Amino acid sequence: MGQSAETRVAPSYMHYADFSGMTAAEARLHFRRGAYNGHTAGIAPGMLQGNVVILPVEYALDFSRYCQRNPQPCPLIGVSDTGSPMMHTLGSDIDIRSDVPLYRIYENGELKDEVGDITHLWRNDFVAFALGCSFSFEDALIADGIPLRHIEQNKTVGMYVSNIMTEPAGPFAGGTVVSMRPLHVQDAIRASAICARFPHAHGQPVHMGDPALIGITDIDAPDWGDKTEFRDGEIPVFWACGVTPQNAVRSAMPSICITHAPGSMLVCDVPAWATDSKQPKKHQN
Amino acid sequence: MGQSAETRVAPSYMHYADFSGMTAAEARLHFRRGAYNGHTAGIAPGMLQGNVVILPVEYALDFSRYCQRNPQPCPLIGVSDTGSPMMHTLGSDIDIRSDVPLYRIYENGELKDEVGDITHLWRNDFVAFALGCSFSFEDALIADGIPLRHIEQNKTVGMYVSNIMTEPAGPFAGGTVVSMRPLHVQDAIRASAICARFPHAHGQPVHMGDPALIGITDIDAPDWGDKTEFRDGEIPVFWACGVTPQNAVRSAMPSICITHAPGSMLVCDVPAWATDSKQPKKHQN
Repeated sequence: MGQSAETRVAPSYMHYADFSGMTAAEARLHFRRGAYNGHTAGIAPGMLQGNVVILPVEYALDFSRYCQRNPQPCPLIGVSDTGSPMMHTLGSDIDIRSDVPLYRIYENGELKDEVGDITHLWRNDFVAFALGCSFSFEDALIADGIPLRHIEQNKTVGMYVSNIMTEPAGPFAGGTVVSMRPLHVQDAIRASAICARFPHAHGQPVHMGDPALIGITDIDAPDWGDKTEFRDGEIPVFWACGVTPQNAVRSAMPSICITHAPGSMLVCDVPAWATDSKQPKKHQN
Repeated sequence: MGQSAETRVAPSYMHYADFSGMTAAEARLHFRRGAYNGHTAGIAPGMLQGNVVILPVEYALDFSRYCQRNPQPCPLIGVSDTGSPMMHTLGSDIDIRSDVPLYRIYENGELKDEVGDITHLWRNDFVAFALGCSFSFEDALIADGIPLRHIEQNKTVGMYVSNIMTEPAGPFAGGTVVSMRPLHVQDAIRASAICARFPHAHGQPVHMGDPALIGITDIDAPDWGDKTEFRDGEIPVFWACGVTPQNAVRSAMPSICITHAPGSMLVCDVPAWATDSKQPKKHQN
């Protein structure tokens, strides 16, 4: 593409702090109007946030299978009807074409553009998938007094392709991408117990301690995100990461795929802790 | 069909008690040989058992969506590749064409036959789905000292179509089918906490107390299974039931659908409690 991705996105006229106290639905309306294209961490605290993957229907069954087979990196929280942009099981009036702050467009596995709205690109054969993300468990860890360095230092969490292979489905395959947070051992144990309560936000860690055991040779050289400072007595703790399905989708090279931009998630009307065995809610009269 | 379903099934030459002490894989080999077509409750205790639904691929994406949207009645535990009869994510060498003790064949929503093997019916466009079942949580309740009347009295649990509507997906829709067990209130509370740990076996109850609140007018007239005796101080406790997806499939009237026969489940090599956040297990060298 001739124009850089950045110049195509209208600049935000709202700031992150403006969303304080807003509900998920209120925040989404501002995203829909193009008022904000930043990250969603801390917006509508306690509500489920999701990674987004939009694919043509020919890929949808295999991608569903990929998520079912790999629930830790790919916890499926919502699937649209084919051709419908409404994520009606995750909230009222969620239009996946406009309600995420920032999107990425991939063609044949290659990043082509970054845009604030995809209404003009929507097709009748698209299926939208939402997958749980780490924001939910990070909120819970912080609430329990476990410090998270990348948040304290306003950095992006370090992410690595591990040698923990996902279970393939059709063209979707690859190593589990893991995010790493340095913690003291006692906090790592508490974090494991807390995160196990959030199976729809990647659940308990997949590894802690020696990075080499999961194929990571240099902890200071993440594949995505920033290098993280370690302090005395801290060990690396690794969680399955929502970049795993994005990575699998890129290597499957579908003709087109649209995702959220990193950190700019779908903010849902569903509480983060309530999705696993959500109660049926509609009674017929 | 001219011949009754019963006469088509070779009689079992093994008895339920013969499976005591066998692993899931050992038991499946006997099912595969046609040695047994009875129920699987108590076989390979502690291992995950599953309801089975086999559909042509044209229905598979909608059925996947139906399960994702209704995780309590339809907890998806495994999906085959299209055309492959191997349920490789649920155990080694599970051939869904022969490894279930007894199958039911539906055409256009109507029960046509009951057979011990479906190898001759298998098609390259079939997708097999396995869904968690109540045996897992019943084992856990009994282990915790909570008595279950239908098991003590060797009856089939009572099942009812409730007015708790499932979230539709394509042609799949309908009320949640619930199973009912009478318990003292204190046991009902403990059962709720125990069952919440088994999201892949329907999770916590969906209702307890007044049956009319979920549209059940006569507790003594279940839609499936047996009438259950109540004793002093007991209340009815209702769980989402694996008959829900079978009911939804029947009303969707697919040209063909194959399921397990009631009680004759797929016995997996996966522990019943470990499936929700199962750890990735394969490391690349």
